[in-house]
Amino acid sequence: MENDRRNFLKKTLRGGIALGLTGACMQTIQGNAATDPPRKGKTVMGLRCDPIPEVRIAVIGLGRGGGAVQRLSHIEGTKIVALCDVQNGRIQNAQGTLKRTGRPAAAAYTGEEDWKKVCARDDIDLVYNATPWHLHVPIALCAMRHGKHAVVEVPAALTLENCWALVDTAEETQRHCMMLENCCYDFFEMATLNMARQGVFGEIYHGEGAYIHDLRGLKHNKRGYYKMWRLEYSKRHTGNPYPMHGLGPVSQIMGINRGDRFEYLTSMSSNQFGLTLYAEKVFGKNSPEARATYKLGDMSQTLIRTVNGHTIVAVHDTTSPRPYDRIHKISGTKGYAVKYPEPKIALEPNAHNFLNPAKFKEIMAKYKHPLEEYIGKKARRVGGHGGMDYIMDWRLIYCLRNGLPLDQDVYDAAAWSSITELSERSVLNRSNSIDVPDFTRGEWKKAKPWPVIDMKTVFS
Amino acid sequence: MENDRRNFLKKTLRGGIALGLTGACMQTIQGNAATDPPRKGKTVMGLRCDPIPEVRIAVIGLGRGGGAVQRLSHIEGTKIVALCDVQNGRIQNAQGTLKRTGRPAAAAYTGEEDWKKVCARDDIDLVYNATPWHLHVPIALCAMRHGKHAVVEVPAALTLENCWALVDTAEETQRHCMMLENCCYDFFEMATLNMARQGVFGEIYHGEGAYIHDLRGLKHNKRGYYKMWRLEYSKRHTGNPYPMHGLGPVSQIMGINRGDRFEYLTSMSSNQFGLTLYAEKVFGKNSPEARATYKLGDMSQTLIRTVNGHTIVAVHDTTSPRPYDRIHKISGTKGYAVKYPEPKIALEPNAHNFLNPAKFKEIMAKYKHPLEEYIGKKARRVGGHGGMDYIMDWRLIYCLRNGLPLDQDVYDAAAWSSITELSERSVLNRSNSIDVPDFTRGEWKKAKPWPVIDMKTVFS
Repeated sequence: MENDRRNFLKKTLRGGIALGLTGACMQTIQGNAATDPPRKGKTVMGLRCDPIPEVRIAVIGLGRGGGAVQRLSHIEGTKIVALCDVQNGRIQNAQGTLKRTGRPAAAAYTGEEDWKKVCARDDIDLVYNATPWHLHVPIALCAMRHGKHAVVEVPAALTLENCWALVDTAEETQRHCMMLENCCYDFFEMATLNMARQGVFGEIYHGEGAYIHDLRGLKHNKRGYYKMWRLEYSKRHTGNPYPMHGLGPVSQIMGINRGDRFEYLTSMSSNQFGLTLYAEKVFGKNSPEARATYKLGDMSQTLIRTVNGHTIVAVHDTTSPRPYDRIHKISGTKGYAVKYPEPKIALEPNAHNFLNPAKFKEIMAKYKHPLEEYIGKKARRVGGHGGMDYIMDWRLIYCLRNGLPLDQDVYDAAAWSSITELSERSVLNRSNSIDVPDFTRGEWKKAKPWPVIDMKTVFS
Repeated sequence: MENDRRNFLKKTLRGGIALGLTGACMQTIQGNAATDPPRKGKTVMGLRCDPIPEVRIAVIGLGRGGGAVQRLSHIEGTKIVALCDVQNGRIQNAQGTLKRTGRPAAAAYTGEEDWKKVCARDDIDLVYNATPWHLHVPIALCAMRHGKHAVVEVPAALTLENCWALVDTAEETQRHCMMLENCCYDFFEMATLNMARQGVFGEIYHGEGAYIHDLRGLKHNKRGYYKMWRLEYSKRHTGNPYPMHGLGPVSQIMGINRGDRFEYLTSMSSNQFGLTLYAEKVFGKNSPEARATYKLGDMSQTLIRTVNGHTIVAVHDTTSPRPYDRIHKISGTKGYAVKYPEPKIALEPNAHNFLNPAKFKEIMAKYKHPLEEYIGKKARRVGGHGGMDYIMDWRLIYCLRNGLPLDQDVYDAAAWSSITELSERSVLNRSNSIDVPDFTRGEWKKAKPWPVIDMKTVFS
């Protein structure tokens, strides 16, 4: 199993090395449409599939997936058909959740490779994939090839090769493939999207998103992640492995892949300090943990330029003593918003000062997103990071049941995940820039930005 | 006069063009000690000159310089000998200040080239230069060549060629040449420096500074800046022309040029929007102001990597509707601090939360910088951006009177100002990285970071 995983990791790196990841290469790594893989299927931009009155779901990976079982059990029109996890205790917990919500037990799978059997079942519409990172792509591909829609936890893919694999397979199979970027459904993120769509910020020429979350203890926890996969990743890679929690909402607001797209980026990392210092403190200065090499620089900064001349900053730091921070900065020609550490808004004609608490409250009420309006209460009750996880799952099921395009698509998954390999390559190339592929193969020009959902018709 | 200025601007650009600022050049622009100009003089790292009991000062440029006359008049051991400005009204105001503070009138100069006469006077120790940007270097060089110490407003220089000119001339003449970066003396900046020197943040591996200040009205004001020099600059250049208000304090704290140094950087700008939109609104859509080309991208982000593996972000935006912001983020292995929009601190072992107001107040009291302790009260009273300008001038005069090294030196001026040309070249080269010259020619390795001033001995 260890060898399988090592081999798998080697394979996923191969694409990067073949593309010239050598110290001698000091030029911009330029992409071009001639070298990107040619389209085999048909675009899935705005894909609508046949409505599914009752969505039959398999949940694979019951760590984070256990919460998904909980949330999906509170959404009508769903049936949890199969549960899959190598840890039987987690299966039992999930079965308990189903029982408590008056649902029948699901089929249970505990084998390491059983996800293949699950994908092959003929009574599943949706594979909900919350496994460790290295299984995200194999399971998603397998699901789509077996005619299922696939939703996959973040990051959807870790290499450009795998980003293209997800896109191409979705286009060939005409199945939905969506990354579960829950932060797009958080309340301030949705409110600022609502404001953006109504022109309150004017043209949004700059955005900033981050994943700043001190995970030193979690990463070094021997009983934490399955086979300590987060720590293992930190030993082998630098750059920004996990940009999407901050990058996703900002990209949606700024219409990436829908009227604009990432053109090129540059990335820079500091050296690594946090994991080593923590290991010295907890395991001792001469412990193997303290003497190990961790390649992931503590602070990662990536600057992305878009075709329309806008800029986006993506930040990553999971090994430093500081409060949680996704930044969420929106900078427009008519106003400005920032979420962390405290939500603030500044609007013309008085943009030199942030709105006072009363005015801020007024604006938040005026631009409350319909999703928060209609299902915010239930979302906060059922839970999942304060409610955003529930709204995400609710929208997923609603769109599948009604044959609508999903809020995020495989092009979002690919673009936001592509930062992982691209940032590392830039960092290892003295922060020279690198082109970002156009995963939409031109469709971004005509596509429309994710609109504000009209919830009135939903609940009428 | 217009032609002189245009010719001068062309000359200062020449260095940049000669160094290969062409679209075809897509590689890292690498510097190396063999191509940097060889040392002609002797290092001025830690320069101590003969004490000057009474510092005789010429103030050139009485826009911002008018405030300097006011502040210097409240510092003992100073004599304002000469005033120079093309606008006689400003001369008169300054003379009024001298009279009100019981000082004799100064010699007055109003000719466009009279700064040369001022520098040649034999009764001046210090030339205080607060002229428009393009005169910063000529006047500083002239002053030093005439045996005077030179202090110069920000930015000290706009090109690498001129950064080297300041360094080389200071080394040849063994005169002080200091940039007037007042923000290093602001209260939270000094407190965080104090905390840094006492190891409270651990190793500071990342910092962020900005100059975010909506100057659209000021830049377009036909009666604002002399010959609208800020607007003219925005027409010709992109990148970050003015990094130091945010970059300076962070660089001091992180020991740049004193144990570490800038190694290379990458820079990215958004397109330009703000100046055009403003001109359309104020002057009309078809006005020459609205139809002019402004090259300066609204949002500029520069990532700098240091030799010790630390990273610094420098941000610039002077044309957008948002509150003033210098950021001032300090990220260390033991804690974190940020100043804008509100000062916050987080420290191990509870760094996942910011200090509550009571604890924050306690920490600010504990680490109040001695400069604030001893002269903060007078500084706030005499004024100048809340007091920091006064502290800066107080320290300048105190060090000159006592033959001490200045708090900032010509290497700081050069390094922080070098971002101007380097950022533009990176932006115009698809954000490929570019090396930052070592203006200290190796002295940075042995030099010690700017310490916390011991004020007790000063006032005993």
